Amino acid sequence: MRAALMYGAGDVRVENVPDPVLVEPTDAIVRVVGSCVCGSDLHAYRAMPAAQTGVQTGHEFVGVVEEVGREVTWVKPGELVVSPFAYADNTCDLCREGVQTSCPNGGLLSAAQAELIRVPQAQGTLVRLPVGEESVFLPSLLTLADVYGTGYHAALTAGVNARTTVTVIGDGAVGLLSVLSARRMGAEQIILMGRHKDRTDLGREYGATEVVAERGPEAVERVRELTRGEGTHTVIEAVGHLDAYETALDVVRAGGTVSRVGVPQYEQGPVGFPAMFGANITLTGGPAPVRSYIEQLLPDILEGKVNPGLVFDHHTDLDGVPEAYRLMDRRETLKALIRP
Amino acid sequence: MRAALMYGAGDVRVENVPDPVLVEPTDAIVRVVGSCVCGSDLHAYRAMPAAQTGVQTGHEFVGVVEEVGREVTWVKPGELVVSPFAYADNTCDLCREGVQTSCPNGGLLSAAQAELIRVPQAQGTLVRLPVGEESVFLPSLLTLADVYGTGYHAALTAGVNARTTVTVIGDGAVGLLSVLSARRMGAEQIILMGRHKDRTDLGREYGATEVVAERGPEAVERVRELTRGEGTHTVIEAVGHLDAYETALDVVRAGGTVSRVGVPQYEQGPVGFPAMFGANITLTGGPAPVRSYIEQLLPDILEGKVNPGLVFDHHTDLDGVPEAYRLMDRRETLKALIRP
Repeated sequence: MRAALMYGAGDVRVENVPDPVLVEPTDAIVRVVGSCVCGSDLHAYRAMPAAQTGVQTGHEFVGVVEEVGREVTWVKPGELVVSPFAYADNTCDLCREGVQTSCPNGGLLSAAQAELIRVPQAQGTLVRLPVGEESVFLPSLLTLADVYGTGYHAALTAGVNARTTVTVIGDGAVGLLSVLSARRMGAEQIILMGRHKDRTDLGREYGATEVVAERGPEAVERVRELTRGEGTHTVIEAVGHLDAYETALDVVRAGGTVSRVGVPQYEQGPVGFPAMFGANITLTGGPAPVRSYIEQLLPDILEGKVNPGLVFDHHTDLDGVPEAYRLMDRRETLKALIRP
Repeated sequence: MRAALMYGAGDVRVENVPDPVLVEPTDAIVRVVGSCVCGSDLHAYRAMPAAQTGVQTGHEFVGVVEEVGREVTWVKPGELVVSPFAYADNTCDLCREGVQTSCPNGGLLSAAQAELIRVPQAQGTLVRLPVGEESVFLPSLLTLADVYGTGYHAALTAGVNARTTVTVIGDGAVGLLSVLSARRMGAEQIILMGRHKDRTDLGREYGATEVVAERGPEAVERVRELTRGEGTHTVIEAVGHLDAYETALDVVRAGGTVSRVGVPQYEQGPVGFPAMFGANITLTGGPAPVRSYIEQLLPDILEGKVNPGLVFDHHTDLDGVPEAYRLMDRRETLKALIRP
């Protein structure tokens, strides 16, 4: 089959690789109908040391089940499914507590930018979709694999509700879908920090009430102006760099919550009295256990009440994956949808 | 009047100072009936540079109102009151949201180890007690000023309930009253990390189910043994040193919460993927807005259902304050009660 492989920073190629096969009785093989390039793929795209052997990439997909192992009864060949980016057994204590991303039998998918993919723990991982692969909702359904569930996780863990004000840092797909999620949870003031007008325009469509295009201290000052000097009750950090974390702490209100869903590109950060403790700031978030959220987010998509698929502004096939990485890296594309 | 003053590390003296007087119409003057030395006083006791002029100390007290400013109508001369360690107007948005410790009109009390104290924002700060100054409940009522409310804040913000397992790091008064609070919230497994048998014995009386006396990696290993390798859902960090913070992250379960109530003696700490983000750990806590909790914690004290006052294992008068600091600094005393 054809698949995208990364050989190092800036070096993605599409090549023929062996078809995946069932390894464990809990596996499924799925034919990929739609996949994506993710903002988190770009971290590797910018940093991976050059290698002789490429590694397959991509962790988001919707597809049609081709074959299942003998312990997989919940999905059958021919069914359209969406997969969370992290596979999990969905039966252990941690899964039942809603942290499927920490399942001891789980892991991250990493070969979805391809024609076929092997999904471990298919029984606990894959979720059937009640539509066909030609559905107009396919882009939105694909966001359930990661970015919509991640935006929802951000707003949920931040504690957004009708009485909380919200700042969202980052105008990538996750930031924008955090805005959408916060609005759906009733937030009436949602400040979106982002500098790309086409993206922040979509953010406004999703419910952002103000856009802050400034950077650094000016951005903090602007959020404070918009909140009587106090900052917002909740802040969603959807970038992953240290300066975004610091900005989050600078714009959160005393007693408020910062939820991080951008993968931190740093190990240490300010957590002391002035930065966090003194004002009773809560820091939460993490890799979204999107498996927990798929069923609850699905109906509004199928009823057309939300359209998270609007984050896809570039459509391509597998051969276009290297170019999709380039465009996303240059921030010329918000998010690419790949139809193998 | 007589008052304790700190002149530098290890140097506390009791001297005559001018009686405090009403400065603002929102002030009250209170005659101190009972005060304490707090674990957080020891940070200054160990680190304060030597000074020519002493600074008055102490932030916990129960007392009898002597005089009130004209805007103070809620308490009257002759009434017994308890004061949270942080004064606040208790009417602003932040106070109403339960973060009185961040009140823009608030601040920290710092002259309670004395015969008299001036309390700013007395209307919002002082809480009347329905007993006389000779009440047998006085030690427990005095814990409402800080340590009981702080232990309660720790357990509350950690999200303790009947389904959560708990680790409490630190066997000081706050750690022990965190145990008491966690037990009252229904927790059935409460692991107390501490090395002073007299203290951990009180911890067991308050509800600790296991005591871990080991340090460092051995302590982490022991907690993991007690929790099927998974750690506890909630961890209360009642020490304030970086190693306690790191231990907290090492023993918290995926998806769990660390609540800090020990004042951090560090500015930077691990907050990246391996330490916190990857397992969806929440970090919360801060200076306890004990004003929020006094009314709800009071009835169980007056009905004899809880006895937080057992944390006082040393009783003295004002002249004994320097010795009380010494004993607490050497950890020979858990907590000193001062009756001026």
